[in-house]
Amino acid sequence: MNKLFYTVFSFFPKRSLGMSKITATILSICLLLAGGSAMAQQGSMSEPVDRAKILTAPGVFGAFSTYKIRYEYYKLSSAERKGAADEVMAVVDKHKDKVIVDAYLTRGFEAKSDYFLRVHAYDAAAAQAFLLDFRATRFGMNSGVTESLVGITKALNYITKDKSPDLNKDLTGTTYSGDAPRFAFMIPVKKGAEWWNLTDEQRLKEMETHTLPTLAYLGNVKRKLYHSTGLDDTDFITYFETNDLGAFNNLVLSLAKIPENKYNVRWGNPVVMGTIHSIAEVVNTLSVGQ
Amino acid sequence: MNKLFYTVFSFFPKRSLGMSKITATILSICLLLAGGSAMAQQGSMSEPVDRAKILTAPGVFGAFSTYKIRYEYYKLSSAERKGAADEVMAVVDKHKDKVIVDAYLTRGFEAKSDYFLRVHAYDAAAAQAFLLDFRATRFGMNSGVTESLVGITKALNYITKDKSPDLNKDLTGTTYSGDAPRFAFMIPVKKGAEWWNLTDEQRLKEMETHTLPTLAYLGNVKRKLYHSTGLDDTDFITYFETNDLGAFNNLVLSLAKIPENKYNVRWGNPVVMGTIHSIAEVVNTLSVGQ
Amino acid sequence: MNKLFYTVFSFFPKRSLGMSKITATILSICLLLAGGSAMAQQGSMSEPVDRAKILTAPGVFGAFSTYKIRYEYYKLSSAERKGAADEVMAVVDKHKDKVIVDAYLTRGFEAKSDYFLRVHAYDAAAAQAFLLDFRATRFGMNSGVTESLVGITKALNYITKDKSPDLNKDLTGTTYSGDAPRFAFMIPVKKGAEWWNLTDEQRLKEMETHTLPTLAYLGNVKRKLYHSTGLDDTDFITYFETNDLGAFNNLVLSLAKIPENKYNVRWGNPVVMGTIHSIAEVVNTLSVGQ
Amino acid sequence: MNKLFYTVFSFFPKRSLGMSKITATILSICLLLAGGSAMAQQGSMSEPVDRAKILTAPGVFGAFSTYKIRYEYYKLSSAERKGAADEVMAVVDKHKDKVIVDAYLTRGFEAKSDYFLRVHAYDAAAAQAFLLDFRATRFGMNSGVTESLVGITKALNYITKDKSPDLNKDLTGTTYSGDAPRFAFMIPVKKGAEWWNLTDEQRLKEMETHTLPTLAYLGNVKRKLYHSTGLDDTDFITYFETNDLGAFNNLVLSLAKIPENKYNVRWGNPVVMGTIHSIAEVVNTLSVGQ
Amino acid sequence: MNKLFYTVFSFFPKRSLGMSKITATILSICLLLAGGSAMAQQGSMSEPVDRAKILTAPGVFGAFSTYKIRYEYYKLSSAERKGAADEVMAVVDKHKDKVIVDAYLTRGFEAKSDYFLRVHAYDAAAAQAFLLDFRATRFGMNSGVTESLVGITKALNYITKDKSPDLNKDLTGTTYSGDAPRFAFMIPVKKGAEWWNLTDEQRLKEMETHTLPTLAYLGNVKRKLYHSTGLDDTDFITYFETNDLGAFNNLVLSLAKIPENKYNVRWGNPVVMGTIHSIAEVVNTLSVGQ
Repeated sequence: MNKLFYTVFSFFPKRSLGMSKITATILSICLLLAGGSAMAQQGSMSEPVDRAKILTAPGVFGAFSTYKIRYEYYKLSSAERKGAADEVMAVVDKHKDKVIVDAYLTRGFEAKSDYFLRVHAYDAAAAQAFLLDFRATRFGMNSGVTESLVGITKALNYITKDKSPDLNKDLTGTTYSGDAPRFAFMIPVKKGAEWWNLTDEQRLKEMETHTLPTLAYLGNVKRKLYHSTGLDDTDFITYFETNDLGAFNNLVLSLAKIPENKYNVRWGNPVVMGTIHSIAEVVNTLSVGQ
Repeated sequence: MNKLFYTVFSFFPKRSLGMSKITATILSICLLLAGGSAMAQQGSMSEPVDRAKILTAPGVFGAFSTYKIRYEYYKLSSAERKGAADEVMAVVDKHKDKVIVDAYLTRGFEAKSDYFLRVHAYDAAAAQAFLLDFRATRFGMNSGVTESLVGITKALNYITKDKSPDLNKDLTGTTYSGDAPRFAFMIPVKKGAEWWNLTDEQRLKEMETHTLPTLAYLGNVKRKLYHSTGLDDTDFITYFETNDLGAFNNLVLSLAKIPENKYNVRWGNPVVMGTIHSIAEVVNTLSVGQ
Repeated sequence: MNKLFYTVFSFFPKRSLGMSKITATILSICLLLAGGSAMAQQGSMSEPVDRAKILTAPGVFGAFSTYKIRYEYYKLSSAERKGAADEVMAVVDKHKDKVIVDAYLTRGFEAKSDYFLRVHAYDAAAAQAFLLDFRATRFGMNSGVTESLVGITKALNYITKDKSPDLNKDLTGTTYSGDAPRFAFMIPVKKGAEWWNLTDEQRLKEMETHTLPTLAYLGNVKRKLYHSTGLDDTDFITYFETNDLGAFNNLVLSLAKIPENKYNVRWGNPVVMGTIHSIAEVVNTLSVGQ
Repeated sequence: MNKLFYTVFSFFPKRSLGMSKITATILSICLLLAGGSAMAQQGSMSEPVDRAKILTAPGVFGAFSTYKIRYEYYKLSSAERKGAADEVMAVVDKHKDKVIVDAYLTRGFEAKSDYFLRVHAYDAAAAQAFLLDFRATRFGMNSGVTESLVGITKALNYITKDKSPDLNKDLTGTTYSGDAPRFAFMIPVKKGAEWWNLTDEQRLKEMETHTLPTLAYLGNVKRKLYHSTGLDDTDFITYFETNDLGAFNNLVLSLAKIPENKYNVRWGNPVVMGTIHSIAEVVNTLSVGQ
Repeated sequence: MNKLFYTVFSFFPKRSLGMSKITATILSICLLLAGGSAMAQQGSMSEPVDRAKILTAPGVFGAFSTYKIRYEYYKLSSAERKGAADEVMAVVDKHKDKVIVDAYLTRGFEAKSDYFLRVHAYDAAAAQAFLLDFRATRFGMNSGVTESLVGITKALNYITKDKSPDLNKDLTGTTYSGDAPRFAFMIPVKKGAEWWNLTDEQRLKEMETHTLPTLAYLGNVKRKLYHSTGLDDTDFITYFETNDLGAFNNLVLSLAKIPENKYNVRWGNPVVMGTIHSIAEVVNTLSVGQ
C-alpha cells in the first residue's frame, strides 16, 4: 500500500496547519504521485499559465461554480468588505502558475446565484487547491456555493477532418467577429441512454445535423465544450460568450429544432447567464450595500 | 484580445469603488462595446424611456424576478423601514433613462414570494445595473430573490399579416376594453423537443388553433410574450393583466383544450399571481409590521 | 391610461403609510375599479359576510395557505405570545365584512406546516388585504408561508340537471348526516393535456363514472371544489371535511379505481390534513412552549 | 350548525390557554363528537393502552414523523439538555391512556433526520394532541420535522382465508423467530392509476405473486402495513423490523422482481432506516455534545 | 417480549448519560443480541479492524455520508478550530476495533458538500455508534449532513467462476497498476422494475455486456460495489478511485453505451467527486479561515 494510502489511513492526528501549508502539502502530494506527466510539468511552471494555450488544449480540467452572497456579509463593516477584492486577488495571484480564473456577475439574471467562477487547470487537484484558498477568504467564506459542475476538455470527436471534412472546414474556418462579448452562458446538457446506445455512425450523423445550423452563428457566438460523464450529473457543460442575445436565442432555437434534441434528458437546469467582468469588479460590485 | 477581455483577465486588484461608480463603469463599458447600435443610442437617452414604445418594441430585454422579504427586515426599527421607499425610488429615478420597472404584490397569493418586479431595458446590462443598485438598497438587501426569468421581445412570428391574414386582423383589431386590470400573472412555458421538431407549417397550424379561442378574451385580458430559449430554463414567459379572474381562468382553460398543450413540458411552475401597484406602494405595504 | 396605471407607473415616492391606510387604499382602488358589480356591492356591505351564502355562491375567490411557525417565535416571552390571538382576531374582525376565514391545525400530521387558513372573499384583492394585515401581526410575522393555492368557485359544470339529471338528483339529494367533522383535507389536483383534449361528452362520461362511487359517501364526507387553472399550478383545489377517516380513505380509493385517475398529473403533493378549530384555538395552541 | 362549528367560526378571541388545557379541550371535543363509538371508549380508558391489542387491531391511526435536531439545541447548556428526557417522558406518560409511542435513532443512516417517532392511537386527534405536547417540550421545540406520514390499519384485504386460503395459512402460520430486531425501516409506497384500475381479481393475483417470495422471510423480518390513500401523499406506509440486514435486502429484492413492482410510482423516497431504542435513549443520545 | 423490547417500551426516563456511555450501551446491546455470530466476534476484536479483510469481505456494512461545514464554524476562534482534528481522531481511535473510516475532500468540486466519509463495519450499529460520536465532536456538530447512503457488500453474483468463467478470469486477473489514486467518486445507481423483472439469464447476459468494456480500465480505475435495495433509495452505491480522470470519463461513457443503461432510473444524483486524504487533513483543511 503506497505512501498516500498510508497517510489516508494513519489515524495519528497532525497538528493543525495553516491553509497555505495544507494546500502546499496537497499539491506536493499531487506532484509526487502524478510523477513526471506532462500535466504535472505544465502544472508546476513558475510563470503564469498560458491562457491561450490552456483554453484550447485537450485534457484540461474545468470547474464551474455559482455562488450566492450570504446576508451576513452585508452586516460586516464596509471597511472589512473594502479589503475583500485584494484578498481574493492575492489568492488568484498565488495560484496563477497552475490555474486561470474567469468571473461573471449573475445577480439580476439568476435567483440562485450572484456570480459564478470558471476555473481551468491541467490538474483537477490544482483547481481544488485554488478554490479551497478562495473559500477561505472573507469573500469566499461569505459566498454560499449553489451549483458546481466539473468537466474536462477533449479534441473534437465527431466533426473531424477525417469523419466530416467539409463541416470541419466550415467549423474551423470562421472566427468570432462580433463586438467583444459582454454576456456568458453556462448550460449543462445530459443525453439519455437511447443517445449513447446509438452507433457511432448514427451519432455522427446527428452531430452533423446539429452542426449545420450553428455555422451561421460562429461570427457572433463563442462556444466551448466540457465533458462531464462520470465526473458529474451531466454529460456536457456547454459554455457560450456573446454580445448579441437575439442571435444567441436564435442559435439555441435552431438546435432545439433538430432530432438530437429529443435525446436530451437534461438541458440547462440551470441555464446560468452572467455578464463578463474581472474578478475584482465582481467582488467590488457585490461588496457594496449598507 | 480587446480591452474588456484585458480587464477581465487582469488580476491586479482595483481599489473598491462605490456601487454607483461600479455600475457607471459597467454601463460605460457596455456603451463602448455596443458601439453605435440603435439599442445603445436609445439606452443612452437622457430623458426617461418612452414607456409606450419600449412595451411594444421588439428586441427589448425583460427581467422578471420574485422576492421574499427576509424575517430580519422586520427586526429593523420602523423608522429605518419608513425610509425604504424613498431609497428605492431614488434608484428607479437614477436608471429611468434606460429602464422601466413595474411592481406587483404577491403576498397572500404566493408562498415563495411577497412581490415581483418586471424590468424592461433595450440593453440587458442596463437592466442588471438597475437590479444591482436595487439590491444594494436596504429594502433590496432584505429581499431574497426566489425566482428570476429573463427573455426578449420579438415581432409576431406565426400569426402575421402574410402567414395568417384573417387571424392577424382579428388579433390586432380588438383592444382591451375592461376595467383597469388589478391582477397580473407571470407564467413560464417550455415546449418539448417534439414541438420544435415540427415543421414551421405544422407549428403555424397549431398556433392558429391556439389563437382562435383566445380572440374572445382580447377585451378583458391583456397579454405580452417574452422569448427565453437559451437565455433561461424556459422557452417563453407569458405575462397577463386582467380585472376578471373568471375570464382569465376560462381563457387558460380554452388553451388547455387544444393539441398544442400536449407539447408543453413546463407550464407555470411557478404561476405567479400579483396585484398591480406602484413600487412605492409595494415597498410601503411590505415595510409595515411590529 | 387610467388612474391606476398612472399610480402604477408614477415613480414619485409616496410617504410611508401605516398598513391599515395602505390596505384601505388598495381596497378603495379595488372598489373604484370594480365599479358597480355585484361582487363589489357584496364586498362592501358593512355587516359581516353571510357565511352560508359565500360558501355556496359561484364566483367566490378562495385562498388556501399553509404556515409553519418560526423557531424565533418561541424565543419571545410567553407574555408577548399570549397577546397573539387577540391581535389576530382584531384583524379578522376588521375584515369580517369582506372576508371569512377558517383555520386548521396541521402540526402532528404535516412536516411542512403547523396550521393552514382558508379564506373566502367575493374579491381576490379583499382576500389579499386580509392576509397582508394578518402577516403584519406578531403571529403572522412569525409564520412562514409554506404553500399557497388560490381558486374560484363555479356552478356545477358536468353533473347538472340538464346533462346528467339522475346523478344530479342523487348528488343534490343527500346531505351530510355524520358527526360534526373534526378533520379537513386540502388536496390539489391537476389534469394533463390528454384530459383537456377530450371532448366535452367524453369528460362528462368520465365525470359520471367519477360521481357514481362517491354517492355512498355524501353522508359522511363533505366536499367543496375550487377551480385554479391559470390562477395557480393546479387545476383544482379539492377540500373535504369528515369525522370518519376510514370512510374518507375508502372514498378516495374508489376514485383511484376509475379511468379518470389516469388523467391526473398532480394529485395532492401536498395532501394537507388538519383538525378544524377556531382561529383563536389555533393561535393559542401554537403559542405555547418554553 | 353544531357546537364545534360555532367555536370554529366564532371570532371572539379566547384568553390564551396553557397547552395542557388546550389539548384537554381538543380531546374533550373529540370525545364529545366521537360519541359512543368503540374507538372513543378505548381512547378514553384511564389505564395505559394495551400495546399488543392496538398493534394488531384494524382502524388504528398511525403517525410517522422524522426529526432533525436544530443546531441551536447544542447551544443550550448541557444542564438544560439533561432535563430533556424527563420532560418528554412526562408527556408520553400523560398521554399513555390514548397513545403509544415508539422511537428510532436515524442519525448516521439518514441525512434528513436524526430520529423518528411512530405513534399509534385509536383516534387521530389523540395522536395529534400527544405530538402537540411533545413539540412544546424543549426537545420537541428544538426538533425540526422533516417528514410526516399518516395512515390507518385495516384487516388483510387480499390474502384472506376466503380469497387465498393456502397463502393465508402460510402467512399466518409462521412467526418471527430471529434475534430481537435492532433495525427498523419506514418505506412509503404509492401505486399508479394503472394499478388501481385493475380488477379486484387481477390485483389479488398480483398480491399472491407478491406474497409467495416473502414467506421465506417471515422468520427474520417483521412487517406492518398502514393505509394512507387520501390521508397523505402515499398509498401505503410499510414498516419493517429486523436484525438481519442481508435478509431484509434479499426480501426487498424478491419484491422488486415481480410484476407488481411495475405499478409503483413511489417506493421509498424516503426509505428511513433507524435503530430501535426507548424514547429516553433517543433523547439522551441526541442531547450530548459540547 | 425480550429485554430490548422492554427497554424500548419502558417509559421510565433514565438519567442522561454521557455519549461514550450511551454508545457503549448501544454496542453492548448489539453484541448481546447479535449473539455468537462471526460478525459480532470480529466486531468485538480489541485490536484494530483488519483493513484489507473488511474491504474485501462480503456482508460488510458501508455508510457513505456527505457534509457541509456550517457558516457558524468559522465564527469560532481559530484556537477552538485548531483542536478539532485531535477530537475527531480520538473518536476514530475509540472505534478502531469495529470501524474503519475513509475521508474525502469535495469542496471545490461539489456544491452540496465540503467532504464525505466512507465508514465500514461488520455491524451497522457499530457504524452508527461511530457516527454518533463523530457528530458530537465540535467539527461534527458544525457539519450539516447533506447526503447519506448505506449498503452492504456481497460476493460477485453475476460474473462468477461458474456462470461466466472467461469474464471472471479476466475480471479477477488484472489488478490496478496506475499511480496512487488521488480522486474518488461515489455514484448511486437504481434500476427500474423492468430490470428486476428480467430473468436471471437475461440479467446475466446484460451484465456480461456491461463487464466487457470495463476490462480495459481495470489497470487505472479501482471500483467497489455496495448493495442498498431496501436499505436506502438506491439499489447500488458504486465507488471508484483513480488518478486518471480522462480514463474514468471514458470508462463511464463505455457503460453508457450498452443496453443495461436503459434500465437505470437513477444514475448519480448526486455524483460525488472528492480527493483522497487522511481525516486529519480533511478536518484541518476545512478548519482554516478568518
